Amino acid sequence: QQNKQTEPKTISLGILERLNAGEVVVGDGGYVLQLERRGYVKAGHWTPEAAVEHPEAVRQLHREFLRAGANVLQTFTFYCSEDKLEISGNVTNITGAQINEAACDLAREVANEGDGLVAGGVSQTPCYLNSQNETEVKAIFKKQMDDFLKKDIDFFMAEFFSYVEEAVWAVEVLKTSGKPVGATLCISPEGDMSGVPPGECAVRLVKAGADIVGVNCHLDPLTCIRTVKLMKEGLEKAGLKAHLMIQPLGFHTPECNHSGYLSLPEFPFALEARAMTRWDVHKYAREAYNAGIRYIGGCCGFETYHIRAISEELAAERGFLPPASEKHGLWGAGLQMHTKPWVRARARREYWENLLPASGRPTCPSMAKPDDE
Amino acid sequence: QQNKQTEPKTISLGILERLNAGEVVVGDGGYVLQLERRGYVKAGHWTPEAAVEHPEAVRQLHREFLRAGANVLQTFTFYCSEDKLEISGNVTNITGAQINEAACDLAREVANEGDGLVAGGVSQTPCYLNSQNETEVKAIFKKQMDDFLKKDIDFFMAEFFSYVEEAVWAVEVLKTSGKPVGATLCISPEGDMSGVPPGECAVRLVKAGADIVGVNCHLDPLTCIRTVKLMKEGLEKAGLKAHLMIQPLGFHTPECNHSGYLSLPEFPFALEARAMTRWDVHKYAREAYNAGIRYIGGCCGFETYHIRAISEELAAERGFLPPASEKHGLWGAGLQMHTKPWVRARARREYWENLLPASGRPTCPSMAKPDDE
Amino acid sequence: QQNKQTEPKTISLGILERLNAGEVVVGDGGYVLQLERRGYVKAGHWTPEAAVEHPEAVRQLHREFLRAGANVLQTFTFYCSEDKLEISGNVTNITGAQINEAACDLAREVANEGDGLVAGGVSQTPCYLNSQNETEVKAIFKKQMDDFLKKDIDFFMAEFFSYVEEAVWAVEVLKTSGKPVGATLCISPEGDMSGVPPGECAVRLVKAGADIVGVNCHLDPLTCIRTVKLMKEGLEKAGLKAHLMIQPLGFHTPECNHSGYLSLPEFPFALEARAMTRWDVHKYAREAYNAGIRYIGGCCGFETYHIRAISEELAAERGFLPPASEKHGLWGAGLQMHTKPWVRARARREYWENLLPASGRPTCPSMAKPDDE
Amino acid sequence: QQNKQTEPKTISLGILERLNAGEVVVGDGGYVLQLERRGYVKAGHWTPEAAVEHPEAVRQLHREFLRAGANVLQTFTFYCSEDKLEISGNVTNITGAQINEAACDLAREVANEGDGLVAGGVSQTPCYLNSQNETEVKAIFKKQMDDFLKKDIDFFMAEFFSYVEEAVWAVEVLKTSGKPVGATLCISPEGDMSGVPPGECAVRLVKAGADIVGVNCHLDPLTCIRTVKLMKEGLEKAGLKAHLMIQPLGFHTPECNHSGYLSLPEFPFALEARAMTRWDVHKYAREAYNAGIRYIGGCCGFETYHIRAISEELAAERGFLPPASEKHGLWGAGLQMHTKPWVRARARREYWENLLPASGRPTCPSMAKPDDE
Repeated sequence: QQNKQTEPKTISLGILERLNAGEVVVGDGGYVLQLERRGYVKAGHWTPEAAVEHPEAVRQLHREFLRAGANVLQTFTFYCSEDKLEISGNVTNITGAQINEAACDLAREVANEGDGLVAGGVSQTPCYLNSQNETEVKAIFKKQMDDFLKKDIDFFMAEFFSYVEEAVWAVEVLKTSGKPVGATLCISPEGDMSGVPPGECAVRLVKAGADIVGVNCHLDPLTCIRTVKLMKEGLEKAGLKAHLMIQPLGFHTPECNHSGYLSLPEFPFALEARAMTRWDVHKYAREAYNAGIRYIGGCCGFETYHIRAISEELAAERGFLPPASEKHGLWGAGLQMHTKPWVRARARREYWENLLPASGRPTCPSMAKPDDE
Repeated sequence: QQNKQTEPKTISLGILERLNAGEVVVGDGGYVLQLERRGYVKAGHWTPEAAVEHPEAVRQLHREFLRAGANVLQTFTFYCSEDKLEISGNVTNITGAQINEAACDLAREVANEGDGLVAGGVSQTPCYLNSQNETEVKAIFKKQMDDFLKKDIDFFMAEFFSYVEEAVWAVEVLKTSGKPVGATLCISPEGDMSGVPPGECAVRLVKAGADIVGVNCHLDPLTCIRTVKLMKEGLEKAGLKAHLMIQPLGFHTPECNHSGYLSLPEFPFALEARAMTRWDVHKYAREAYNAGIRYIGGCCGFETYHIRAISEELAAERGFLPPASEKHGLWGAGLQMHTKPWVRARARREYWENLLPASGRPTCPSMAKPDDE
Repeated sequence: QQNKQTEPKTISLGILERLNAGEVVVGDGGYVLQLERRGYVKAGHWTPEAAVEHPEAVRQLHREFLRAGANVLQTFTFYCSEDKLEISGNVTNITGAQINEAACDLAREVANEGDGLVAGGVSQTPCYLNSQNETEVKAIFKKQMDDFLKKDIDFFMAEFFSYVEEAVWAVEVLKTSGKPVGATLCISPEGDMSGVPPGECAVRLVKAGADIVGVNCHLDPLTCIRTVKLMKEGLEKAGLKAHLMIQPLGFHTPECNHSGYLSLPEFPFALEARAMTRWDVHKYAREAYNAGIRYIGGCCGFETYHIRAISEELAAERGFLPPASEKHGLWGAGLQMHTKPWVRARARREYWENLLPASGRPTCPSMAKPDDE
Repeated sequence: QQNKQTEPKTISLGILERLNAGEVVVGDGGYVLQLERRGYVKAGHWTPEAAVEHPEAVRQLHREFLRAGANVLQTFTFYCSEDKLEISGNVTNITGAQINEAACDLAREVANEGDGLVAGGVSQTPCYLNSQNETEVKAIFKKQMDDFLKKDIDFFMAEFFSYVEEAVWAVEVLKTSGKPVGATLCISPEGDMSGVPPGECAVRLVKAGADIVGVNCHLDPLTCIRTVKLMKEGLEKAGLKAHLMIQPLGFHTPECNHSGYLSLPEFPFALEARAMTRWDVHKYAREAYNAGIRYIGGCCGFETYHIRAISEELAAERGFLPPASEKHGLWGAGLQMHTKPWVRARARREYWENLLPASGRPTCPSMAKPDDE
């Protein structure tokens, strides 16, 4: 029976055990953009104080991702270094440590509702941009790591780095914990912001100790796959091995350059028309899988149902459907009972795979001119 | 100070007291499509068993709408008549009464976190389509009403009716409760599915006892405003008075005809590119207000941040900003601190009001051919 | 054999004899826009002095239309009243009479190369807009008519009138010649610029003596067909009979209102992306024929190959293909010998009928906001 | 006075004298596509028998280009090798020699009406594709050259070559005439069809004796400029000198790859929406000039008014406006006298430079998927 949910395995394995065994690991989606829309994150600041202020909102989003098939829940700790919190000026009377710890508890609580792993996340710092001072930047990462180590996390994720150098520093710090470390850059196929090509970036990260490398955010899925492929080639040429991961945008950004979707005129408040459909995600998940990537998730713009679409596309490879598929007919099967005959005719894979969706915006263009051109 | 949140008044007034006093009442957004995306509602069935199965998910969405400024929370009881639940075949071991009662409790619980009102909702029945038997259809509405009356609701909302005749029957039943009744049709400016024009529809509903009349779902905001204006004209010609309400789609549907967005090739799984931005909602809220409509909300496609946008556009008229605006700079003000100069340049109303957002989908058209042509 | 050219009949029949016999009469295309592009007409002025200054250019365009299957060549005398020539200020040392006479000679010369008829054309005058003085306006038409009557023309065509009143005056004057008179208005389905609906316009023109009535210019083919249908209904209701004609724009103008394509931002120097394909014209010709229209041509934007497409679509009805079809494989048949396999695959009707042509302009919208909204 | 036509110089200089003196040479536009639309060339065959069958049509198009400011008229001898004529099967009872000679006479006759030069044109042969036999292919070019040398031409143009090897052979033959030789390839920035990059192509052509090198056809202006820039760089690296020329498509083809617009679904009968505006041509002419290209014309899709736009953009550099500008207000100046205020408001450069023209085709995409992907 196609739509039956198989129970996920009950003995919890670590992230590396899973990847080493060749399993597909489904990541979670984007927190900051989604929680901005839900009313808990301030655009422009993008800081994660909601973990303290509105834990129910963060908990619910974690739960949705878990239910959609995510194997990993990242702590909601984006931009949660003290220097960033201070600059943003949005958070008062709450320390970074409080947020980091609350976020770990939330992720752990929900992960335990299923078979989820918790990844403690750190990201780029203003300090690096301002000083490039290795000692200072590493101290920031150390402080965050220590917050996490008070709690029960499974591994570390260093993500959203524009410069591989800063990511390397993060990895070097996090490796001292003894836990597995993943590292993703928000870069284009052109390389990082100082021009280091993706293959070379991957090599540096792995040499620094990263167990899993890849890209996240800033560009759309097909572009990110190209970048990860270049990382893979670089590692192979260097005779190195690492697991590959990808967490792209949930938006179509075909015209973007180096600086990604920040340069689009629609960023961040008019990106709706660029949002991927679940069918776009099916295609992405398949291509990522075919490229040899086994840790497949999403970043900004990836909503709950996009993660479910990854899980459904790779159901055969994983051996089960996620819990949320009990409320989703595969490839539109739920439409078979609709009252309108033309809607019933859409209850099939071929229809959705070939649809070219209209925007309903006839006075709008289909492509924009990025501001970094 | 522009961005300061004023406390909403603390003495709770009823819906008619508010509308009679000339207040703007902000409605909530769409539940079924949003909960489908979050993994709790099955597309094609669209039934509300999540109120029993996953109350935390429904509670959280209620809370978001309240926080975004909604004055009313509708019970999550769409399609919750026994005949519909039976046909859908999706719900087993849960009765309609159980769902209705659980949904009332959820809405009440969250409404009481602020100053919200609870509207008990009923909608079109398969029975009407199959039999047009007044006795049978009214019995169904009576049963739902009785479920609601066991709980603490403030007024009734009969919504999503394609035929004014069925809506009239619903109103006639609900009026026997002694509570205020609102009624909205999912019709186009052409009129209901049997050809009754909007003005005549409104007259019949008011004569049946409806205190508030308007439209919901099926078409985009500007089209729905046109329909409500026709209702208003019809009432004025007939010398009748009623409050006007509107809860349109959160999608652009300029090419739709009589049967609304059901006829779009993108319904229901590829509507992303049609989603309204928050700035589209600002425009909608202003035009609805200028048309004399005072109960202004949304239906399918209206997410939390769209409701916040209604509240922000009408903040001066209402005298306060909603709680969620503490996490939202008006007109993009939060971007003033962004690192990229071109993003900082977007922290102003003029930018967002004039932006024509691109879809990033150059091989897709901007308009579709509806299937009902 | 499908592609064989049959000789057109050699005994020349008059326009009314042809239409009375139920024949399809193919009109010619647009002169002013095409000759502007070829370098002989000044945009903004749109006056026809090229008939005197560059007769070879006018002659060649007449010849192309004849070769494409046109049964009628209109004299190149658009805007050729003395009051218009004077205002435009573009023409010096040439009188309107000189232009009118030269234009008659050119059309006659080329018409005689085949079996063509010559229609002497008059159009709206500045005098009408300024004075609405019947005596003065009629004197202008009388003067033009007298110019034409010195030459060998077959019938008169009063075209491009925004007000039916002026067109009626033109018809009343031209009827005194004893020659058949056609009259077309550049109006939308809403009616003429003073609000007279199309049906009433047609009635007035026929009562004034017009033998053929219809619309030309300002709007795209499918919109113009709707207007002519309304004219037909008006005549039928009034118990009147007349032949119907249509000469629409060769551009897609779906968003236009009352004032037609003048209100589009692209008018007149960026209309390229709106140009109809030959396949659009096939569809138009068939729909015009099905609507009972028998005089079918084009106006601004209709190039030679568009007229050929009318002739090819209606080849069975007319009994022959035009001379130019010796250089055109029907429905792309000439591509059968192309070197690229994918181009050969396009040598069939189904391909071209279903193609949705891309603009190659991803930063441009598909619809504009007309300036008369 | 801005709009005054200055007389072109009356002492006729040769092509190399002009280019050596640093003059801008304006080329002519495309013949085959335009004459197809006018009814004289068969699509799919694209052979130039009209030079014999309908000399008046060819003469008129030459005259338009001359009047629009072209300094060079190419003989209408595209695909006029005996092997191509035979394969096409379209031409009977007319030899290639007859066409070549008639075409030379027509170009000469019209060129002498102004100060034009005549370029005898040869293009790629089926023989090369089938045999790659240097002796046979060169014999074909020799035969065509001998036809031309019976007539009065000024220089040779070898154009529309997909393989630089064949172009080199053409140049080697044509150089034996003692006349200047230009050579253009229909290639993308990727290089010719056997993968020779543009820079290397240019070097080989110049070493073979070409005085002028560049690209023509197959891709849009901005893409062709990129290719010519690569040619220029290649020549500079090799220490070679040659004049640069460019004759691109008059269509927008942003999505095209190696095989150019042949791969677009719209080729050749639905390219309308891709046509360039005169303002697109202004931009092209300026960028070509800035890239150091001094022989600037057009190929398929370049109509008369596009050539006029080149002449107008470069009027200051050339010192005069073309004759056809007497019928064209610069940057829309002719609209100043229009009756509608919103059209008068368009009589300025800023308006047209910034306009994003709509297609009026809301159900069509803006980009296609090329068939060679």
